[in-house]
This record gives sequence, C-alpha cells and structure tokens, in this order.
Amino acid sequence: MNDEQIEKVLDILKYDSAGLVTIVAQDAGSGEVLMIAHANREAVRKTLQTGIVHYWSRSRQKLWLKGETSGHVQRVREIRLDCDGDAVLVKIEQSGGACHEGYRSCFFRVLRDGRLVVEGEKVFDPKTVYETPVSGINRSGGSRGGSR
Amino acid sequence: MNDEQIEKVLDILKYDSAGLVTIVAQDAGSGEVLMIAHANREAVRKTLQTGIVHYWSRSRQKLWLKGETSGHVQRVREIRLDCDGDAVLVKIEQSGGACHEGYRSCFFRVLRDGRLVVEGEKVFDPKTVYETPVSGINRSGGSRGGSR
Repeated sequence: MNDEQIEKVLDILKYDSAGLVTIVAQDAGSGEVLMIAHANREAVRKTLQTGIVHYWSRSRQKLWLKGETSGHVQRVREIRLDCDGDAVLVKIEQSGGACHEGYRSCFFRVLRDGRLVVEGEKVFDPKTVYETPVSGINRSGGSRGGSR
Repeated sequence: MNDEQIEKVLDILKYDSAGLVTIVAQDAGSGEVLMIAHANREAVRKTLQTGIVHYWSRSRQKLWLKGETSGHVQRVREIRLDCDGDAVLVKIEQSGGACHEGYRSCFFRVLRDGRLVVEGEKVFDPKTVYETPVSGINRSGGSRGGSR
C-alpha cells in the first residue's frame, strides 16, 4: 500500500475517546481467534506499512510491536474492517504463541459443564521468554493480553 | 449452569470503567468472525442463563438481546475467556446475518491491493427487517454494530 492509500484507510476508522480501535487477531490458517487488543492510528499505520501487527499497549501506554520481546510476531495475511469502522479483523500468521502466558491463543479458558477449565495449546514457557534479565533489567511484569 | 456457577464466572471477568467486557462472536461451524460488541455483567448473566447471546448496546444504553428485532439470534455453542478476563469469545450458531447492514458478518470490507472492497455474503435486506413501522413507530435508526 502506498502512503495515500494507508492514510485513506486510517481516515475511515472510527477511534474511541482514547484514540483506539479494537483489533481481533485470527489465525489465517486454522481460523482460531488468538487475541484481542487495541491500536491507535499510528499502530494501524505501522501495521499497514510493515505487514507486521503493531498495537497500542494500554498498560504501558506505548506503541507495541507484537513479538518485540518474545519474537512471536504476527504477519498480516488479510485485513477486514467492521461495519462501524471501530473494529479491525487481522488474519495473521502467528509465530510461536499469541498469549503472554505461553499459550497459542489468549482464549485458553473454556466453560465446560459450568466450570472454567484450561484447554489450550501451550507453545512456550513464559519464564524463558520474558524473565531473562537483559543488561541487568528484568523485563517481566507489566504485560497484559498477548505476548510482547 | 446453576446460579452459583454463573456468578463465579461473572466474578472472574474484568469489566472496564463503563462496566463492560468485549465480546467476539465467531461462527461455531465455519470459524468466521461475525461481530464484536460489548456486554455488562447482566448481559453476560442472561447469555449464560438462556444460551442466547445478549449484549449491552452502547448506543442505546440498554440490554440488547441480539436478534430481538430481526430474529437473527445467536445460540451459544462454546464460551471462552481470554487471559486477562476482559474479553469473551462466544462460538455461536447465527441465524440469518450478524450485521445490521444485512451481511452474514460485520467484517464485510476487506483490503485488496490497497483498496477497501466489499466482500461479504449478504443474507437479508435491512429495509425489510428493520424499517417496517410497528404501531406507528419506525424502528430503524440508532443501531450500531450487529443487527438488532
């Protein structure tokens, strides 16, 4: 996409009072819904420019390249907008797992017979991925919804 | 689910400052993502009690039984919670279309070669479904995101 086309799409989106739209990431192959997060105009622009999904981290209040810490990036295969323009469906190729708890999908808890049970594919150990001190700084903590 | 089990699930959810969680509705058969909307505690309770998806309409500020006007109800097949507990994935059997514009899915606009194009299955005519005056009251208008 060229810059003009990108800005046109960014203009169509309806951002909420915090300047955000909702993003649903779905596995382009299996159809599994992997996570929900948010993006501001800049994050959507970066996603369209690079083909790698960027979000806005509400907990850290900063642009968030998904996989910047874990390497578990999301490559865009298809992008869809909903009727209101306040939600975006990104069909992606997910490397590793989407969830910061080590699961393929953030939706690893399911209701079965009235009880919530864990039923999801664990694909990495969050301790190994996030808790290695880098230059003396422990980078764990502060993450919410989706692996960094 | 009995009342105690339902209240336990409602307690696990993390509601935002407006008392809402995000709901993603996915076709249980095809895996197609149909819509995104919101639910408050009462709407989730009604969904769990009845097996029919209820939302909170932010535009109308009221409990919203999906399909109350259109008949296009969503029957629950599976319910999943994300890691943060602020998003719920409902796998459903959708009668008719999920979108108030007549499409099967609200995500009927897709980016192709830098342009946004309509590419979705139209399953009903919104004029027929919503614009019949009932007792002299025209019930169209005011709907956002997902058919009523």
